[in-house]
Amino acid sequence: MIRVAIIGASGYTGAESIKILLRHDGAKLTYLTALPEECGAVEDIFPQFRGRCPMQIEPLDLEMLSDLADVALCCLPHKVSMGYVPKLLNAGLKVIDFGADYRLKDVAVYEKYYVKHTDTENLKHAVFGLPELFRENIEGAKLVANPGCYPTGATLAIAPLLKEGLIETNSIIVNAITGVSGAGIKPSAKFHFPNMNENLFPYGIGTHRHMPEIEQVAGEIAGEKVTVLFQPHAGPFDRGILSTVYCRPKEKVNNDKLLQLYGDFYAGEPFVQICNNAPGVKDVAGTNYCHIFPTCVKGNIVSFSAIDNLVKGASGQAIQNMNIIFNLDETMGLI
Amino acid sequence: MIRVAIIGASGYTGAESIKILLRHDGAKLTYLTALPEECGAVEDIFPQFRGRCPMQIEPLDLEMLSDLADVALCCLPHKVSMGYVPKLLNAGLKVIDFGADYRLKDVAVYEKYYVKHTDTENLKHAVFGLPELFRENIEGAKLVANPGCYPTGATLAIAPLLKEGLIETNSIIVNAITGVSGAGIKPSAKFHFPNMNENLFPYGIGTHRHMPEIEQVAGEIAGEKVTVLFQPHAGPFDRGILSTVYCRPKEKVNNDKLLQLYGDFYAGEPFVQICNNAPGVKDVAGTNYCHIFPTCVKGNIVSFSAIDNLVKGASGQAIQNMNIIFNLDETMGLI
Amino acid sequence: MIRVAIIGASGYTGAESIKILLRHDGAKLTYLTALPEECGAVEDIFPQFRGRCPMQIEPLDLEMLSDLADVALCCLPHKVSMGYVPKLLNAGLKVIDFGADYRLKDVAVYEKYYVKHTDTENLKHAVFGLPELFRENIEGAKLVANPGCYPTGATLAIAPLLKEGLIETNSIIVNAITGVSGAGIKPSAKFHFPNMNENLFPYGIGTHRHMPEIEQVAGEIAGEKVTVLFQPHAGPFDRGILSTVYCRPKEKVNNDKLLQLYGDFYAGEPFVQICNNAPGVKDVAGTNYCHIFPTCVKGNIVSFSAIDNLVKGASGQAIQNMNIIFNLDETMGLI
Amino acid sequence: MIRVAIIGASGYTGAESIKILLRHDGAKLTYLTALPEECGAVEDIFPQFRGRCPMQIEPLDLEMLSDLADVALCCLPHKVSMGYVPKLLNAGLKVIDFGADYRLKDVAVYEKYYVKHTDTENLKHAVFGLPELFRENIEGAKLVANPGCYPTGATLAIAPLLKEGLIETNSIIVNAITGVSGAGIKPSAKFHFPNMNENLFPYGIGTHRHMPEIEQVAGEIAGEKVTVLFQPHAGPFDRGILSTVYCRPKEKVNNDKLLQLYGDFYAGEPFVQICNNAPGVKDVAGTNYCHIFPTCVKGNIVSFSAIDNLVKGASGQAIQNMNIIFNLDETMGLI
Repeated sequence: MIRVAIIGASGYTGAESIKILLRHDGAKLTYLTALPEECGAVEDIFPQFRGRCPMQIEPLDLEMLSDLADVALCCLPHKVSMGYVPKLLNAGLKVIDFGADYRLKDVAVYEKYYVKHTDTENLKHAVFGLPELFRENIEGAKLVANPGCYPTGATLAIAPLLKEGLIETNSIIVNAITGVSGAGIKPSAKFHFPNMNENLFPYGIGTHRHMPEIEQVAGEIAGEKVTVLFQPHAGPFDRGILSTVYCRPKEKVNNDKLLQLYGDFYAGEPFVQICNNAPGVKDVAGTNYCHIFPTCVKGNIVSFSAIDNLVKGASGQAIQNMNIIFNLDETMGLI
Repeated sequence: MIRVAIIGASGYTGAESIKILLRHDGAKLTYLTALPEECGAVEDIFPQFRGRCPMQIEPLDLEMLSDLADVALCCLPHKVSMGYVPKLLNAGLKVIDFGADYRLKDVAVYEKYYVKHTDTENLKHAVFGLPELFRENIEGAKLVANPGCYPTGATLAIAPLLKEGLIETNSIIVNAITGVSGAGIKPSAKFHFPNMNENLFPYGIGTHRHMPEIEQVAGEIAGEKVTVLFQPHAGPFDRGILSTVYCRPKEKVNNDKLLQLYGDFYAGEPFVQICNNAPGVKDVAGTNYCHIFPTCVKGNIVSFSAIDNLVKGASGQAIQNMNIIFNLDETMGLI
Repeated sequence: MIRVAIIGASGYTGAESIKILLRHDGAKLTYLTALPEECGAVEDIFPQFRGRCPMQIEPLDLEMLSDLADVALCCLPHKVSMGYVPKLLNAGLKVIDFGADYRLKDVAVYEKYYVKHTDTENLKHAVFGLPELFRENIEGAKLVANPGCYPTGATLAIAPLLKEGLIETNSIIVNAITGVSGAGIKPSAKFHFPNMNENLFPYGIGTHRHMPEIEQVAGEIAGEKVTVLFQPHAGPFDRGILSTVYCRPKEKVNNDKLLQLYGDFYAGEPFVQICNNAPGVKDVAGTNYCHIFPTCVKGNIVSFSAIDNLVKGASGQAIQNMNIIFNLDETMGLI
Repeated sequence: MIRVAIIGASGYTGAESIKILLRHDGAKLTYLTALPEECGAVEDIFPQFRGRCPMQIEPLDLEMLSDLADVALCCLPHKVSMGYVPKLLNAGLKVIDFGADYRLKDVAVYEKYYVKHTDTENLKHAVFGLPELFRENIEGAKLVANPGCYPTGATLAIAPLLKEGLIETNSIIVNAITGVSGAGIKPSAKFHFPNMNENLFPYGIGTHRHMPEIEQVAGEIAGEKVTVLFQPHAGPFDRGILSTVYCRPKEKVNNDKLLQLYGDFYAGEPFVQICNNAPGVKDVAGTNYCHIFPTCVKGNIVSFSAIDNLVKGASGQAIQNMNIIFNLDETMGLI
């Protein structure tokens, strides 16, 4: 049994990781940590685990860690994460980092959108953990940068087009709508129930940090520079991201060809489903699946994808990566 | 035109009062105040008023107040309120207080559930502002204690039974479910969207401050001591309180008699509707109406009432009281 | 007092029109009709009107109509509507039609998206009822085609750009998300609560009937043919449409210039608010306002608009049109 | 591997059963049936199973059934169910029936609330499938009547009190609020999204069919006749039932004694959690757990319980029963 530590277990991705691992046949939770003020019994912090997980969330003790775990799911916020990841690696653990610190390969871009990078050494070796695109790299990785929720949905929606060079790479618009769990567990005015309920609004206009991440991954697939206009919105539901991606084909395509292309590209992928009609976020809620429907509209290609931001967009994908790293069945714990 | 000041205009009851007064033909907003850190243009604080209310919310200046307003809607929290109400009265204004400070006539009970009372003098003269029960007192009042949201729904649901002495006064159970706006505008973990959405839970078990308020009003109607077991719950919607009140009749009654009794009791009341089937909170959302359905079940009487907690349970009722005080049509601004 | 008939009063736009007209100082409801099987007391059909509207919804009697009303709000579905509108006009009434039958000027386009047109004569004289763009035509109109909800939000979002010829007219993408009331009152599997709640999905992909309507209006403003890729989505809330419109400027613009342009274009408009940050659908829920925020992102212009689909997108706009036709204050009943 | 057939797989309890069984290590789905017009690929009927369940839902063929399955989960509506159950039993299968046909032991009571009973023979031998109370009977059962969702939550909330004879058995009031999935998959006006969203209302006043079922089970535990006033409500969420049960103790009790009593009564139960504060429906959503909090309020006992109506209230409990019948670990598939 793989022994799993969750570093920063007191948020929504921590809870989702616990939930998945309770059902996992090849891995078990051995260590849960958080900031001292967020520690306590898992049951008290997350009542959904009453009777299901008799563990404590404790302050991190790096010395214990190396004896307790084979892999760390690092659910810390960006900036904080790169302070811990080197220590986790030094302790001999494999690390799957949920934050942004090891995703952007170009340090200058990272520093423009976030803060000064303090661990560029490990950044070099980090693997971007989107299995459908980079599975081979993940297999031997010590440090996996788990993708952002939006980049997961957006890039899966158009990867076949990029790979085949079918679209103008300066024409891509990603319009996405997320459920509120994507905003994290910390209360705020925007997400106070009476403000968010019955509401829907755009945010991060022109400035969202997932924009360069989408561009990086899309560029890597395409083998050329890709420009993406990414516009996120928040909607009144818990889970899910619907990405509606608009792009212009270089040459005329038709729906049959699109479906064939996507079907071939994702053949054998356990968690990608190519649909022949519009996906909804509820179809994938609570699952690690990505539903994709590509279609032609008035000379454009519109590709829709739906994922659960906490599962395929975070904890599920992390455990999919863990399964790959440890050579387990990739779907273990995720069905 | 009656000139209205709102003291503490930066919360949900403030916003609801502004909304109603923008449509009021006999009153106009002249002064809006809040704590300094919550001041600014109404449009910025509440985007729903963009283009509709070109006013500022300002720090309270008591000296200006007496020149600016005839009546103050005092939307301050309990304890804070009784620090200001004497000054508002001294400034010559009529005052309708939204908080609890002037509702409980028994100072000892107030102090048990809240804090030490510092304005017992005005408390003596304050009128409990439930027009359907105490309209005559309200007419000449200088200080009206606007009822709590739960007490409004609960007491209207059973007032005819209490008045006629039809029920055992130690048998009353009030099971109520409120929308989340009742919890106020301040963000908290409990009401963070991903925690509250798809949730429903009881709270204030055995301790809710509206329990003694319901008992006081019920006792006043009944002319004897009344004991109420009041259990509130919060549900995933913005507005509304559904009260399901269980009680035991002293003698056998039937549904026809109940409907007749309620119909007679509330005859001519502009905002009470006796229904012949179950009310829902959406039927009254955004209105000042109370829908009531009393019925017999297995030897008990069950009476359901639905109100909008922000309107009939707060701002609407306050303006109904204002209309009564100033001898305007009671429904003005409230249709 | 203008006397208003609502033809087809048993749906959501009928209810919303009733609600607005109950507060209208210059008009009163005199006649409500529906299909025989949907008739009855307004209070029974819409419990929200208990005590507020003691009227019946009756089967339409054309002979009575001419004596009873000055104007008909015709809330019938397309195809049905054009069977009645000629009779309403012949009865001497002004008509504001909520459906699509009189919106599309090109009969061929209408017949492609809907059915065979049976009243092309009146179609010729019908005025498209978007006051911010066509107020002068509305003033003298006998028949107003009230715009679709999506076209209202989408065209207001970009009208200043089109008018000034600032954008490529073949580059426009309208990504819109509507609340579920837009789907009407008739139950269906898609909008059954447990299917729609916590869900969000695209629909009408490449085929939505509001696409040619947006193109027609946009083309009229621009003075040239406009091609629009319109993609609607449904989200888990009652009211509101958020339109996110992407377009490419012909020349470089900046945010200041955009805000100035929009401010000038909509100067004096009572129901359009140009915002300096992202609008949300809750900001406009229950109001006749349209909030717009145009901005530049990576060489594109993105313009966001929010309206309430039942108010500015239907009943509110109809009554705004009615006010204009009858020379009343345009905002009457709508504040 | 136990081979499982689901009879009537096209509704919400069918889908939930499929979901659980996909994760079950000791059982596998072998046959899914529904009415001919509801048949098709599982993936098409329930998009949540795309890629997860490559089965068809087919019309029932009784002859195949005996070769295909060891147990039938019978998710048919009452009345229909008792037409099939004898055939399923004759085919040699164990049967777990989700409907009401085999729950009420008193045929007269059944026939008062439902229809004429046509299989009284099997009714005699049916076991009421609430494992926490009747586990021993379930172990050897051929036919298990899976309890109703409300009776599950309500009786678990007060079983220790009834067993110990601590409360007046004519004093019990069960106030319950369910999520909308409890109303089934068939669209209706009441549960049309724009009608149900932001709404909450009582229904089945004095007439709900789960009332006699609660009384029967409660009576069995108490060993005497029990009278229950049961009042259900529907709230705007997908899953969960919160039961708030009010009763009067025969003698004074205190909270410590209550918690001890409940702790002892449910010691070792894998799916019952005694809490020391108020449970919420979201804490148990998607799980087979029942969270209970009993407390004393003003001389009464109030006991709260929360379950997921589709899991512990239906499919989860059925599979818990299946596990017991086949001597599997009781929690298999349910963690």
